[in-house]
Amino acid sequence: MRGKVYIVGGGPGDPGLITVKGLKLIGEADVIVYDRLAPHEVLSEAKAGAIKIYAGKEPGGRGLSQEEINRILVEYASRGLTVVRLKGGDPLVLGRGEEECAFVIEHGIECEIIPGVSSFLAAAASSGVPLTSRGLSSSFAVVTGMEDPSKGFKSVDLAKIASSVDTIVILMGASRSAEILREVAGVRGYEELGVVVMRASMPDEKVLAGKLSDLIEAAERGEIVNPAVIIIGKTVRFREVLKAGKG
Amino acid sequence: MRGKVYIVGGGPGDPGLITVKGLKLIGEADVIVYDRLAPHEVLSEAKAGAIKIYAGKEPGGRGLSQEEINRILVEYASRGLTVVRLKGGDPLVLGRGEEECAFVIEHGIECEIIPGVSSFLAAAASSGVPLTSRGLSSSFAVVTGMEDPSKGFKSVDLAKIASSVDTIVILMGASRSAEILREVAGVRGYEELGVVVMRASMPDEKVLAGKLSDLIEAAERGEIVNPAVIIIGKTVRFREVLKAGKG
Repeated sequence: MRGKVYIVGGGPGDPGLITVKGLKLIGEADVIVYDRLAPHEVLSEAKAGAIKIYAGKEPGGRGLSQEEINRILVEYASRGLTVVRLKGGDPLVLGRGEEECAFVIEHGIECEIIPGVSSFLAAAASSGVPLTSRGLSSSFAVVTGMEDPSKGFKSVDLAKIASSVDTIVILMGASRSAEILREVAGVRGYEELGVVVMRASMPDEKVLAGKLSDLIEAAERGEIVNPAVIIIGKTVRFREVLKAGKG
Repeated sequence: MRGKVYIVGGGPGDPGLITVKGLKLIGEADVIVYDRLAPHEVLSEAKAGAIKIYAGKEPGGRGLSQEEINRILVEYASRGLTVVRLKGGDPLVLGRGEEECAFVIEHGIECEIIPGVSSFLAAAASSGVPLTSRGLSSSFAVVTGMEDPSKGFKSVDLAKIASSVDTIVILMGASRSAEILREVAGVRGYEELGVVVMRASMPDEKVLAGKLSDLIEAAERGEIVNPAVIIIGKTVRFREVLKAGKG
């Protein structure tokens, strides 16, 4: 008998923002392999005797390698166990869920992906900046701020993206934030509005808001640290009113 | 004493894909104002005596008007009641959550937005098509397939977006799907791969997959109906392997 692997999006960090289905699977799992940015509080819902394995995935590479993670998923599921792979955000938005699921399937094991609230949706909600809005934004782009060496070329043309969509969202861009913000400002102007939401939805969440020129200064002072979501565009105008009403 | 309004993202339709926090708020609400595409099953979690109001929001305009919805939210919250505004997907992705929340706040009432799993994340998971993937996609754009008359100009330049991001996601595009697919094919070619996911995450979910030329034919036969998510790009290649492993 073979087990099954569930690749579960754990949401942005607030344990209340995992899905009902994701939480239920955690309660049923024999093995839980969890990332640094997954909501660790939900592990208390695991059943007695469940094996919990910390996969790490920290910037700089501490924690298990991708190969080790893949191998662990297959190994436990091959013994007939139910394995939950708990990730931060959504598994298919810069989460490598597709790679892990494909690996597992290629080893003859069933795999199902459970979507989650991606960090940028939480960043929008808690900063009061919609991704779209009538008359202001009909489109948004989500891009990685990290270069992908495996693509062998500059993978994201931010200037081009900034000139084609209304709202721009940059994930995993803290370490290059000054450069990224300048690239967008080159197209949108330094007066364009943006927010940077760090640790979106978590108790120590921090929001910086202002013109791109202000955010560039903050980036140069080292104030933008991971995990950070950057949102740029006209919809940032909503922040003042929505922030005022949070009570 | 004044109440509070919670604008809750109900997720894509599967009642298991609402967040834990969203479901908890439904259990605490005195009044629930819910949309057509919100997961109606979760209403059974409402407390005894809770008032449930169907807002509709169907294409073509049946149901309450936006003005009526706004007024209802303010009216009940002004009586000191806790009001949950339950929406499909995420409130800040083509959901008008920002408008409703701003209206409520301008009437002196607290408002909080709870993010949800947007339909495109569910469409990606259930069709086996990641939005990003190492070496294939570092960016995606989400655009509305509906024109926005209030913007007074063609609000989305799909051809430009298709040439600037790796993965393209179109929401609410069923009625114009042939036109939309042709516009993208003009940039990406008719051999480019895409999927159309209708009623993502629901029991009667339907997925069409193929080259854009195939999907255009399907659109012309009237096979693409709302609610539909269209995803186009190289990551559609993952579908074959991920679909095979769903068990």
